[in-house]
Amino acid sequence: MVDVAIVGGGPAGIAAALNVNIRGLTMLLFSGPNGLGKVKSAKEIPNYLGFPNVNGEKLAGAYEEHMRLTGILPLMKTIDHIYPMGDYYALTSGDEMWEARSVILTTGVMSQKPLIGEEELIGRGVSYCATCDGMLYKGGHVIVLGYEESAVEECEYLLKLMKVTYFPLYKGAKEVKGAENINGNKPVSLKKAEKGVILTTDSGEYHGDCVFIFRSAIAPGTLLMGLDTENGHICVSRDLSTNLPGVFAAGDVTGLPYQIAKAVGEGATAGLNANRYIQSFKRADD
Amino acid sequence: MVDVAIVGGGPAGIAAALNVNIRGLTMLLFSGPNGLGKVKSAKEIPNYLGFPNVNGEKLAGAYEEHMRLTGILPLMKTIDHIYPMGDYYALTSGDEMWEARSVILTTGVMSQKPLIGEEELIGRGVSYCATCDGMLYKGGHVIVLGYEESAVEECEYLLKLMKVTYFPLYKGAKEVKGAENINGNKPVSLKKAEKGVILTTDSGEYHGDCVFIFRSAIAPGTLLMGLDTENGHICVSRDLSTNLPGVFAAGDVTGLPYQIAKAVGEGATAGLNANRYIQSFKRADD
Repeated sequence: MVDVAIVGGGPAGIAAALNVNIRGLTMLLFSGPNGLGKVKSAKEIPNYLGFPNVNGEKLAGAYEEHMRLTGILPLMKTIDHIYPMGDYYALTSGDEMWEARSVILTTGVMSQKPLIGEEELIGRGVSYCATCDGMLYKGGHVIVLGYEESAVEECEYLLKLMKVTYFPLYKGAKEVKGAENINGNKPVSLKKAEKGVILTTDSGEYHGDCVFIFRSAIAPGTLLMGLDTENGHICVSRDLSTNLPGVFAAGDVTGLPYQIAKAVGEGATAGLNANRYIQSFKRADD
Repeated sequence: MVDVAIVGGGPAGIAAALNVNIRGLTMLLFSGPNGLGKVKSAKEIPNYLGFPNVNGEKLAGAYEEHMRLTGILPLMKTIDHIYPMGDYYALTSGDEMWEARSVILTTGVMSQKPLIGEEELIGRGVSYCATCDGMLYKGGHVIVLGYEESAVEECEYLLKLMKVTYFPLYKGAKEVKGAENINGNKPVSLKKAEKGVILTTDSGEYHGDCVFIFRSAIAPGTLLMGLDTENGHICVSRDLSTNLPGVFAAGDVTGLPYQIAKAVGEGATAGLNANRYIQSFKRADD
């Protein structure tokens, strides 16, 4: 078990890692496939103090260099579920699992809005994790909406179990061999069918036993059950603690403004307060 | 009248200025005599993301360069009072005055703790502003505690009106001509006398009609009456607003952790939310 698990490898996650590391705690930083991708894609960032008119590539480079020199090595894993286990948390990515005393959520915000009807169907025909829920639909026929690259791998996993209709929806997305690939359709809404789910796009309707959706961030309330959220943001106090003991959040996931400086500042605060939480545990163990 | 006045020229104040400036608002940044002094004095700053193991001089230099390139010119004035004027605020420094629709307080924390008994005597024998309260003691005899350089000027002002016993208390402090200078004494506590105040130091007691104290930051509750504070910190919501409309706060003054990254992040958020406040005014004017 590590002291702190940080879920999300953007500026908030890295800032949290830096501050957890300085305090000498054991730690895992789960970066997922995106990490600093959003920073890198910015043409110009005028307001991260100390870097006048920097572009995203250069700023991300400075962050990576800071991580490298501090010895922080992010794990390229996307956490799909977090389970409260009494006085610690279990985090899973597919069939891998880690344990941590404290968790800092820095998962960012979804760049896409949920589809109409999507949130109502979570766990009843909408899933965000192939390895978690795939077996439930073995021998059937599912729909996969791929908004980011990790969808390909998930899709390939599902293809071993069932038929897949795949929508490649991100820039530069490729078709997945073995799947029915539907190009150029824009998903709009989801509704419950008598059996399974109906996806409505701007060019027609599609039916599947389940719709698997892969985006750059999972809605925080679905990642960790019982976490208080509001309009898709995690509710935090001024010290960045959430309603769950030992769970902190920082960055875009806590709400507006979506700014790198805010994410870095909150990451630092969450990291230091996670340290305080851990120290209170260690004192109690003495 | 400007849209936004920012009081304090450390990292939080500069970050606020940067974000207010980007939104095209009119603005004043009051830096006071210290500004980035606290940053500059840091030997090593390991956790401002993007600047691995930087020293304070270098980081402050990058901040100054960012200001310079953005066209932000801080005013080297220490604001001593802020007055609510209905839907705007008046800010004074000695006998100068400015007006602003919105105020962002980034005054930092006092590096010295208040003296024992000091807070109870504010307005009843303790003052932080010679030009505000000096006239009350005309012809009398006051004590001046100089923890920073601005004390000299204040002391000289008071000497025109009364006798002054001056305690130079900062590194490199010089005696003030015309005053009774007391060197090498460490002030400990203040108490009410039958008339005036008694200052107890580690080397004896001194009596004055009033004790004027000049430190690098004024306690926020004395700067702006009616502002909610707790343990010397300004109470803020998650959006960095205070209990007073149009007044925001950011950085060390809002509480722990005292970290540059936190100050910069809060400054950015306060700047952007001050912009929202100003826009709501401008819409109402249409």
